[in-house]
Amino acid sequence: MKLFNKVAIIGMGLIGGSLALAIKKKGLAREIVGVSRHKKSWLLAKRKGAIDKGSQELFTIRGADLVVLATPVNVILKLAPRVRQFVDRDSIVTDVGSTKEEIVKNLEEIFPNFVGSHPLAGSEKRSIQNAQADLFKNSLVLLTPTKKTNRKAFKTINLLWRSVGARTEILSPQIHDKILGFVSHLAHIAAFSLIGVIPKKYLKFASTGLKDTTRIAASDSELWAEIFLSNRANILRAIESLQGNIGRIKLAIKNRDKKKLSLILKEARAKREIF
Amino acid sequence: MKLFNKVAIIGMGLIGGSLALAIKKKGLAREIVGVSRHKKSWLLAKRKGAIDKGSQELFTIRGADLVVLATPVNVILKLAPRVRQFVDRDSIVTDVGSTKEEIVKNLEEIFPNFVGSHPLAGSEKRSIQNAQADLFKNSLVLLTPTKKTNRKAFKTINLLWRSVGARTEILSPQIHDKILGFVSHLAHIAAFSLIGVIPKKYLKFASTGLKDTTRIAASDSELWAEIFLSNRANILRAIESLQGNIGRIKLAIKNRDKKKLSLILKEARAKREIF
Repeated sequence: MKLFNKVAIIGMGLIGGSLALAIKKKGLAREIVGVSRHKKSWLLAKRKGAIDKGSQELFTIRGADLVVLATPVNVILKLAPRVRQFVDRDSIVTDVGSTKEEIVKNLEEIFPNFVGSHPLAGSEKRSIQNAQADLFKNSLVLLTPTKKTNRKAFKTINLLWRSVGARTEILSPQIHDKILGFVSHLAHIAAFSLIGVIPKKYLKFASTGLKDTTRIAASDSELWAEIFLSNRANILRAIESLQGNIGRIKLAIKNRDKKKLSLILKEARAKREIF
Repeated sequence: MKLFNKVAIIGMGLIGGSLALAIKKKGLAREIVGVSRHKKSWLLAKRKGAIDKGSQELFTIRGADLVVLATPVNVILKLAPRVRQFVDRDSIVTDVGSTKEEIVKNLEEIFPNFVGSHPLAGSEKRSIQNAQADLFKNSLVLLTPTKKTNRKAFKTINLLWRSVGARTEILSPQIHDKILGFVSHLAHIAAFSLIGVIPKKYLKFASTGLKDTTRIAASDSELWAEIFLSNRANILRAIESLQGNIGRIKLAIKNRDKKKLSLILKEARAKREIF
């Protein structure tokens, strides 16, 4: 089912490339245009059959009835005013940024039909090389409409994500950032912090435990620095909770308080088993 | 090749059960006896073909030329004096505990032919149900001989682990505990601490990142409380390093210091990529 005539995706990374592949696979658009700063990326996207046309130039998005901003969060914010000149008033615009409050606040001022999206389908392998049409299948996409969001635009974006196999949930941008500050951003802080203190010469003694625990620390450091700064207040609060809990565990070990220590670990374990 | 006449394994969990299965598969012993506090565990081990004979009674280990202590670390320490009465002077004894300094110090006083082992092949799934003959294949087993260790006993234990498919490395008990304090124990502290602070109602928004990062927090909480206390000094130092690094990241976010933050994350990432 054709939802769109021309889709323009700006940013040909894992998410942008996979969305293009998924839209192609499901036949949701007549034409897909991919824009990337890096010629290599859109060329590969084209070779993979993800897009019909690629370019480094923003003007190629002209006439698109859907524009997807699929760049890192800081680039979304920087790019939006330039993108505006090539977007029609009734075109729908969405993004796939990992933080929403700042982006939604800015972008709904710029685009009349903006809907914030956040597909929870990333990976530490972020480039177009790893893109796949099934990336969103059975994944969760968080949508963050506000009072200003155009109802029809919201319905279309909701249908887009469902059409590529995702479930969708609605959160306010504020609640989104608070939740993601814990379930995603704090997990990255923990992983980066942990691997950061392991002496290099000890790494050969690591088993799957450390590898899994720090897998997401192989994620792009620039990208994550931007995400952390973009969700600063929530992340600082989440870090304080983590520091508090590490402190409690440390104190129980220091005091040889087996009972207290077991209790903290047991509660943590019970929560992990919910997954 | 028969390395042993009678092998007795005390503790029929993931490691004890898998070692029994591996010894059977490779035909390394004429007979294997499994001892467990829980009748259910040795019965299942017997049904899986891991052992020839099972019991809750320690006296059944009599006459074994190899005794493997495969219980949690604190139980190894408690059990050793009772095990001694049933062990011949020239029998070889080993353990599979996750910490080595305390265990080796105690057990080499009790058993003339003791060799400390630590197979890095555990999992958060620890029971006999998950035991498999291939668990040690391509895994690393750390051996912790001391000046007191009998050379022949060491060679035999080294050969045992290599025969079931593992690589072996030699470390002093002190260095072992220092290294494991970082690569294993601190990783567990981070995972338990992290999942502990995630509000329960946020869990449904978690993606694979948080799941992987906290997988090892599904490990047995009693077992890990014992490990943490058994390697207390090293773990306290490791926790302090982690606290320091989280503090550095927090400060960079607080100060909106993108350059510093990127640098910390980049260094962490580079280390993770060594894996």
